[in-house]
Amino acid sequence: METKTGNIIIEKIKESKITKVDFSNLPFGKVYSDHMLVCDYKDGAWQAPRIMPYGPVSLDPSAKIFHYGQSVFEGMKAYKDAEGRAWLFRPEENQKRLNISSKRISIPELPKEIFMEGLTTLLKLEKDWIPTTPGSSLYVRPFIFASGSGLHASPADQYKFFIVCAPSGPYFAGKIKVLIEEKYSRAANGGVGYAKAGGNYAGQFYPTQLAQDKGYQQVIWTDDNTHEYIEEAGAMNIFVRINDTLMTSPVSDRILDGVTRKSVIDIAKAEGIPVEIRKIRVEELISASKNGSLKEMFGAGTAAVISPVSGFGHRESDYSLPELENSYAALLKKRITDIQYNKAEDPFGWRFQVG
Amino acid sequence: METKTGNIIIEKIKESKITKVDFSNLPFGKVYSDHMLVCDYKDGAWQAPRIMPYGPVSLDPSAKIFHYGQSVFEGMKAYKDAEGRAWLFRPEENQKRLNISSKRISIPELPKEIFMEGLTTLLKLEKDWIPTTPGSSLYVRPFIFASGSGLHASPADQYKFFIVCAPSGPYFAGKIKVLIEEKYSRAANGGVGYAKAGGNYAGQFYPTQLAQDKGYQQVIWTDDNTHEYIEEAGAMNIFVRINDTLMTSPVSDRILDGVTRKSVIDIAKAEGIPVEIRKIRVEELISASKNGSLKEMFGAGTAAVISPVSGFGHRESDYSLPELENSYAALLKKRITDIQYNKAEDPFGWRFQVG
Ligand SMILES: Cc1ncc(COP(=O)(O)O)c(C=O)c1O
Ligand SMILES: Cc1ncc(COP(=O)(O)O)c(C=O)c1O
Repeated sequence: METKTGNIIIEKIKESKITKVDFSNLPFGKVYSDHMLVCDYKDGAWQAPRIMPYGPVSLDPSAKIFHYGQSVFEGMKAYKDAEGRAWLFRPEENQKRLNISSKRISIPELPKEIFMEGLTTLLKLEKDWIPTTPGSSLYVRPFIFASGSGLHASPADQYKFFIVCAPSGPYFAGKIKVLIEEKYSRAANGGVGYAKAGGNYAGQFYPTQLAQDKGYQQVIWTDDNTHEYIEEAGAMNIFVRINDTLMTSPVSDRILDGVTRKSVIDIAKAEGIPVEIRKIRVEELISASKNGSLKEMFGAGTAAVISPVSGFGHRESDYSLPELENSYAALLKKRITDIQYNKAEDPFGWRFQVG
Repeated sequence: METKTGNIIIEKIKESKITKVDFSNLPFGKVYSDHMLVCDYKDGAWQAPRIMPYGPVSLDPSAKIFHYGQSVFEGMKAYKDAEGRAWLFRPEENQKRLNISSKRISIPELPKEIFMEGLTTLLKLEKDWIPTTPGSSLYVRPFIFASGSGLHASPADQYKFFIVCAPSGPYFAGKIKVLIEEKYSRAANGGVGYAKAGGNYAGQFYPTQLAQDKGYQQVIWTDDNTHEYIEEAGAMNIFVRINDTLMTSPVSDRILDGVTRKSVIDIAKAEGIPVEIRKIRVEELISASKNGSLKEMFGAGTAAVISPVSGFGHRESDYSLPELENSYAALLKKRITDIQYNKAEDPFGWRFQVG
């Protein structure tokens, strides 16, 4: 049976799958909710979005997504508060960034209304799928890919925008050890590193696997030219604390402008923490580690929230980070998740109610 | 009805679409033949390949191809000679390169037998689809993508290998004008540029579109660090002739090791043409153009064969190339296509009969 909410046609699932899900033991991004949003681009325009049961998509084998990696995505989370209300965190930042990514990948920009109305309508419908177990949330994945076909290496004439939802537990289990990468690179100057473009991620799998084989969970990417400066991690921006100063690299055309990153910067400043946004040399980390001034390192991203780093590898050496009583990471994580889960005031106006 | 040839189950199309195709007026890569090869990777192994009618593939919306660009491909051509026999050109090079690409993108390597037997069995079946109009051929596209699902940024557990065929006319119509790119880049040091990975192509669309808007057909990529050296074009390696010496850049982790490129090098050497494989400075091209020693420039690739360049743009200036009576491009194109179409001896042993 179809109904219509605003501009969106909704076809509801016959029987919800929700009772089959173990909400106390959720993996990350492997269990999907009942419904998804789908919107097609064809004949030069984005068409009317619709919500339908989560299910397979049928594509021509010559669809350009299979050949030329023409895709972009976003990652967000929906949180439920103690009163059962559903919240997003700064969704308009994701909406803007999706279009920034799309432009670089020659994908037609998606109108803001389709993104925002699609997102809120879908989340209202999927509200029961937002877990309440601590550390869990509903991971929300908007994405666009080239569905138009052709073996000529040029942009497609048709695209599909989807939003799918996955009730998820933590991305990492516990603290992580990272490897500073000096051989492989994630992004080129003038490349697509600042875009959330599919191909940026596939290129990281192999070097990350090599690092995992050596006992690290993540790679810290450095600039592809000198490998002297740390840039970011797989799906996180990187913060470093030397003495009492919190530092992170400036964003560039190689580094994703993370929503968590900029929120952490604002919260830290509001907490009176000295913050420096500047290039960070690998050498600097190593000497700070040796002289004891390197207090903390953590990754910041929607999926991983704030993930403290317990140590890092560089060439053949390992450097470990101290266990702190009052870490910035713990404070900043509490502040940001308290806003996200509506457990505290939101002086920045970042919370966005969806239901 | 299903039959079996060697290890491959074949399900034939009920009625061929071939009579509906205008073979005298073929686009590039837009018309597909009757059958395709499909092979699945699951449970840690590549399964039995099968040939079936060309048609849609059904995928979970969380299949990793849509999110993380995990895909690789190859491009080959099948040619028909005057006696109606079908030929490929150095297919084992493509087989090897597919696995080189796969390794970098964390895709499990495909056994050589599946590739070669799949390819030859499919082409025997599709032989009537190989056009005989001059300049036409059957473009053959093997590709692999991540079909396993999950929103965690890590390699998939399932993949699909396909081969599809498209009877095709020339990739470019006539000579091309190219723009030497100084802002955007194609590949990073330590990146995936040497792999035929989907994401490398999507990243080129936007800068190529900007170049096309200025009247160029293609971008010539330069190194991402200094933009002082020319590297390659969208889907072609680049050759330059200064006085009587033919030059091309060495391959690296940023540049695709083209089959056409290495064949051109071998043919040129056999023809007694002096060949230099070395880095080529943009400045060198410009001064050679100014003093008249820059005689030719051409792209070399399977799709574009040998495509002469009529001129190049750099910053705000345009440089045009002379019209030569006896160009290397024309000679090398004749030599390579004569081998491909079985019109001449094949001293290198490159031709590979499929039917
Ligand atoms: C490469 C990369 N860096 C950083 C981030 C963090 O960005 P955000 O905080 O907006 O999630 C992400 C992912 O989400 C990412 O993919
Ligand atoms: C980036 C790139 N460079 C060069 C080439 C030429 O390689 P080949 O001669 O093997 O077709 C191709 C394509 O096929 C390519 O995609």
